[in-house]
Order: sequence, then C-alpha cells, then structure tokens
Amino acid sequence: MAGLGLADVRAAERRLRDRLHRTPVLTCRGMDRLAGRRLLFKCELFQRTGSFKIRGALNAVRSLVEDTESAGRDLPRAVVTHSSGNHGQALACAAQAEGIPAYVVVPHTAPCCKQDAIRSYGATLVPCEPSDASRAETAACVIQRTGGVLVHPNQDPVVIAGQGTIALEVLEQAPEVNAVVVPVGGGGMIAGMAVAIKALRPDVKVFAAEPRNADDCYQSKVRGELTPNLHLPDTIADAVKTSIGPNTWPIIRDLVDDVLTVSEEEIKSAAGRRAQAVPSAAPEQPALAAGVTAAALSRQRATRLVWERMKLLIEPTAGVGVAAVLSEQFQAVPRDVENVCIVLCGGNVDLSSLTWLTDLPGKAE
Amino acid sequence: MAGLGLADVRAAERRLRDRLHRTPVLTCRGMDRLAGRRLLFKCELFQRTGSFKIRGALNAVRSLVEDTESAGRDLPRAVVTHSSGNHGQALACAAQAEGIPAYVVVPHTAPCCKQDAIRSYGATLVPCEPSDASRAETAACVIQRTGGVLVHPNQDPVVIAGQGTIALEVLEQAPEVNAVVVPVGGGGMIAGMAVAIKALRPDVKVFAAEPRNADDCYQSKVRGELTPNLHLPDTIADAVKTSIGPNTWPIIRDLVDDVLTVSEEEIKSAAGRRAQAVPSAAPEQPALAAGVTAAALSRQRATRLVWERMKLLIEPTAGVGVAAVLSEQFQAVPRDVENVCIVLCGGNVDLSSLTWLTDLPGKAE
Repeated sequence: MAGLGLADVRAAERRLRDRLHRTPVLTCRGMDRLAGRRLLFKCELFQRTGSFKIRGALNAVRSLVEDTESAGRDLPRAVVTHSSGNHGQALACAAQAEGIPAYVVVPHTAPCCKQDAIRSYGATLVPCEPSDASRAETAACVIQRTGGVLVHPNQDPVVIAGQGTIALEVLEQAPEVNAVVVPVGGGGMIAGMAVAIKALRPDVKVFAAEPRNADDCYQSKVRGELTPNLHLPDTIADAVKTSIGPNTWPIIRDLVDDVLTVSEEEIKSAAGRRAQAVPSAAPEQPALAAGVTAAALSRQRATRLVWERMKLLIEPTAGVGVAAVLSEQFQAVPRDVENVCIVLCGGNVDLSSLTWLTDLPGKAE
Repeated sequence: MAGLGLADVRAAERRLRDRLHRTPVLTCRGMDRLAGRRLLFKCELFQRTGSFKIRGALNAVRSLVEDTESAGRDLPRAVVTHSSGNHGQALACAAQAEGIPAYVVVPHTAPCCKQDAIRSYGATLVPCEPSDASRAETAACVIQRTGGVLVHPNQDPVVIAGQGTIALEVLEQAPEVNAVVVPVGGGGMIAGMAVAIKALRPDVKVFAAEPRNADDCYQSKVRGELTPNLHLPDTIADAVKTSIGPNTWPIIRDLVDDVLTVSEEEIKSAAGRRAQAVPSAAPEQPALAAGVTAAALSRQRATRLVWERMKLLIEPTAGVGVAAVLSEQFQAVPRDVENVCIVLCGGNVDLSSLTWLTDLPGKAE
C-alpha cells in the first residue's frame, strides 16, 4: 500500500461531500482534568449509520459507480462484504443509496442491533463463524454465487482512503491538535488517517489503541512483521476483534507512532464511586482535582465515563481510545502533546444487552 | 410576575456569558422523518452540571453577589433550595464557584446519581419527603437555622430569567424556528423562554410538554386557574413531578400557546422492533418512510429512541418533549409549523438503574 496517498484521501473527500455529516469535535473540561491534557472528541458516533464506516463504504461504492459510468459499463451486480456489524451496515446503506444489491457476511455472534440495522437497509445477511478465516471463505462463496464485488471492511484501498477523510476534518476543525488516538481493528481508520496526517502535518502524533486481549497491532509493531491474532479475541470492543492486514500493516508500520493497549476493565467501566456521580464538565470535583495519581487514573474507565460525563452514547469500541488516553501508559507521552484528538468511532450499542454496564462493580449506590 | 421581561433575560445572558456552555443545536434526519417536520434539538444535556438548571442557579447566585458587592455588604451566609436533583446540583455548583455554602433539600426518592453529584459540589444534603409541602417546610427550617437565602428552583424570578437565556440562544442558532417544545415541571424553563420568545419573535409558538400523570399545567390552562397536582405524580420523568407555581403560572397562562401531555410509555420506550434497530440519521429506513401513520407515530417512544437514533444520553424528563412532538396530538399542529425546537433539558441518568430501559417490551431480539 505504498501507493495510497493524500490524493486518494482528497478524492474521497470530494466524493463524500454533501453525502455525509461533518461530525462535530466536542470537548469536556471534566475529561480534560482526568487526562491532564486537552481532549478533542471527534464524534463519529453522530455519523450516518452511527459509525465512521460509512465513509469508506460510500467511497468504495461511489468509486465503483464512477468507474462503471466513465467506462460506459453496467453497475456491479452486487457488493459483498464481511463485517462485525458497522461496516456491513455502512455498505448496506451506501449500496441502497446507489440501487445496488448488498450481501453482508456477519459472524453470528455480532450484536443483534447491528444485524437488524443491516437488514433495515435492504441488504441480505449471510451468517458465518466468528473467525477471520470463516468470514473470508463465506464471502468468497457469496461472490462466486452472485457475481458481486468484494468491498473489504478494512483492506480495500478505497475504504482506507474514505476513513482518512476523518483526519482532514480534524485538522481543519482543531488545527491545534498534537496527537490523534484511534481504535484499531483491521486498521482501516488509522491507516487512512495516518496517510493524511503525516502528509499534511508530520508533527502530529498518530497513536493506535487496542484491547490487550486483541493486541495484534501492538505485537506486529514490536516484532516488525504482520502478526495477526492467533485466536478469536475475547473483548467487549466487538468492532476491533479483527486483525490488521496486508494493506494496513505497511502504513501502520511506517506512519503510526505508537500502539497503546488497554484492559477490558478500562474499556468498560466508569471511574470509582465518587467520580461516577459527577456531572459532565464538572469544574470543581474534589476527588479528582489537580493531583490525580497515575494509580487513580488507571481506574478511570472509559465507556461508562463518557456516558456519564459527556452524555454521549458511545459503543465500547469507541471507549478503547478514551481508555488509552486515561491509562498510566499515556502519562509517559511528553507533556507538549497537549491537545489530543480521540476518535469516538461509533455509537451502535445494543440497548437490550447492557448487563456489562449495569452489573459493573462500583456502580452508584 | 407581570414584571419579568426581556430585560431580565438579557441581564442573565450578560451574567452567564463565558461562565456556561452555549450548547449546540443538533438535527437528525431519521427523527425528522418520524415527526414529519424538521426538528432542532437544543442540547442542554451538554450544559455544565448536565442540565439547563445551572443557568437559573448561576444567575441567582451571581445576582446575589453583585447586589451585595454594590451595597458593600457581606456575601450571603448560605444559599438554600429544594430540588428533585438537577437544580440542587446546579445551585451547589454555582455556590461553590462563588465560595458560598449551599444546603439542598432533596426528596429521599431522588435518583442516587443526582444526590451524589450534589454532594460532590460540596453542598450539604437535607432529605425530605417527596411532596411539595415537605420540600417547602424543610427548606424553611434550614433557612431559619442557617440564615441562608432561598433560591427557589422554579418560582424565583432570577432563576426564571436565567432559564430564559436558552431561548435567546435558540433564536440566534436557529432563526428558522417556528415553535419550541419545552418540558414543564415547576415551569421555570418555559416561563423564561416564553418571555424572551414572545418579546422577540411573537410568531414562534411555545408549547409545554408534560407527563399525563403530572398534568397540572394542562389542567391549569383548561380551568384558567392555577391547579397543582393533588397527589405526588407517578412518572419516570422525575424532574417534572413538581407543579407550576404562583410566579410561573401567569406567564404560562398568558404566553404559552398549548400544553401537550404524553403517556409514560411514550416517554420511556423506543419505536417498534424494526425501528429501534435503525441507526442515527438513517436515510432510507423502509419501515418508517414517507407514509408514517398517526397510529405508528404514537408508538414512537421517545427517550430510548433518542438514545438509539441520536446517540444522546438524555434523561427521561428530556424525553417528554420528544414524545410530545411524536404524539398523535402533535399531528394537529398546522403544517406551517415546520421547524420545531425541542429542548433536551438534561442527561443525568442513573446508569445503575436502567431496568426501565432494558426491561421494555419490544426490545431488540
């Protein structure tokens, strides 16, 4: 993927203009105090389909349409993909907008709300086992049967370029940014963003964030070679169970500054008893004022914290980036990395399955 | 309260400037389709302390400080109030900022998270029975004991003027607005907003929204005289259990165009099975496209719908306004009332008590 460059991300920006939301960047002083830095939250949970994935999916479908139009050919018979949910939903939405049938291969373990949403966009669901191998095989079968075109959720260059448009917006909306923190599953979002950022603003750090239970990106960087997860990872952050791949790895290897890993507890939970009762942007919260220790910070847990403090209904995968910035590990990042943008990548939560939230220890009395 | 006018709201605007957030107005095409109108969501859940109440509370405390400063007197010994939670939290925050002790009388039935938050701002909590009478009596005792000043949550003119600043922002942020829909408890927010709106833009309709189980505002308008709830209302919208009072009633009587009442089911729940799986801003949702019937709309239930579609963690009280706009009753509002602003008044949800949400019938499979 040495070939993917800023021009591809700019082309995606042009294709997506007026078709998608320019999502807001929100701030919260209470969160700043917890992190000890200024945090800029890029709210992709407000994006169409409830996650950033529509950027890549729509860029892919629009590219297909433009290519066939300029070549005077018919539209593709179908688009096909495999996805833990958000990309499937996004591709279904993009295909429906262009009048192309969509087939989505989904692990049968994916959250119900994501499966229902894919169906609601008129796509055909094809269940598979929850492994990278089963996803790929099942998709290959569907392609053979339908004559459709595969739009890979994170290794397709056009998809990667589409996700990169997030970075163009962040650099415009918050030019003071010193670093971005991006959750990594297949690596499409961080690869696209890194391409744009390092071309335009090489001074801005690009950090990957992933669950410790799905740390293939971290292992790959440490070993200097692509090292996928050997087994299906066990993590609440369902959208990042997948591993980085052959197209995202070289970009991550060359352009990502560091990989931060976080525990399940850090992803899920809120802060301790005192902290969780505190309202958003609370300015004078005694238990968490100025001298917050690293040990206390390690207990600041992300997803529920964002729900309680920011009133934003993020999905646990989006909590991975927040947890990384609140981790002890992040304290070692130099202090001149002052303005840190966290991509809140999605908000597709299955509200009927909130036991992970309501059963947390240390919940409000 | 014939005396309260635009000048008071403008004075509040000046006092609060740079001390509070100018909360965003968000839109969602999926919600527009459900309502059959363009909806503008004024996001007071993002306000400091997690609700609009800080506007009135801070205006009251700043007024006290300005008055004592200009008279060369000492600051008040304490501020005192009674509140189901959000105003208590707001007054505690405002008092802490000015270095004044705060005492907050709270019904012992108020959500734990709100009680904890009041404490976290350094205020002293005084429990009372969950009735308007017990609140008032307990507060009177505290005032006598402490020599403090009462800041009534909704009948204090300075509080009412502070809440009115929401309207000034809405008129600037969304000048196309044709109507505002405001949840009513004690009536401070709607009274303040009505004063500002009818002075500046008499063409803009002002609608009150309240639970059918706490319809004192509706009853008062029908009878033409202040008619408080006789018994403690049973509603999930805990922040609007209180009744309108002697200072808000004349303003509501003269300036509020209509009162919309909604059922508990409409406040709490999401749309039907198909609808709830659909992501935010979903553009081509077949089950709910164009020809949505009034009967279908009555099933669109508000709080969970906003969580699922908009990814905004509103509290059930904020769902009252949304439910009103999605109700059959609202279908009778003339079609030229096209752009409707709903105030999402707060987001202080007790996340450890979500059984009302997860136990809903018709939840995602």
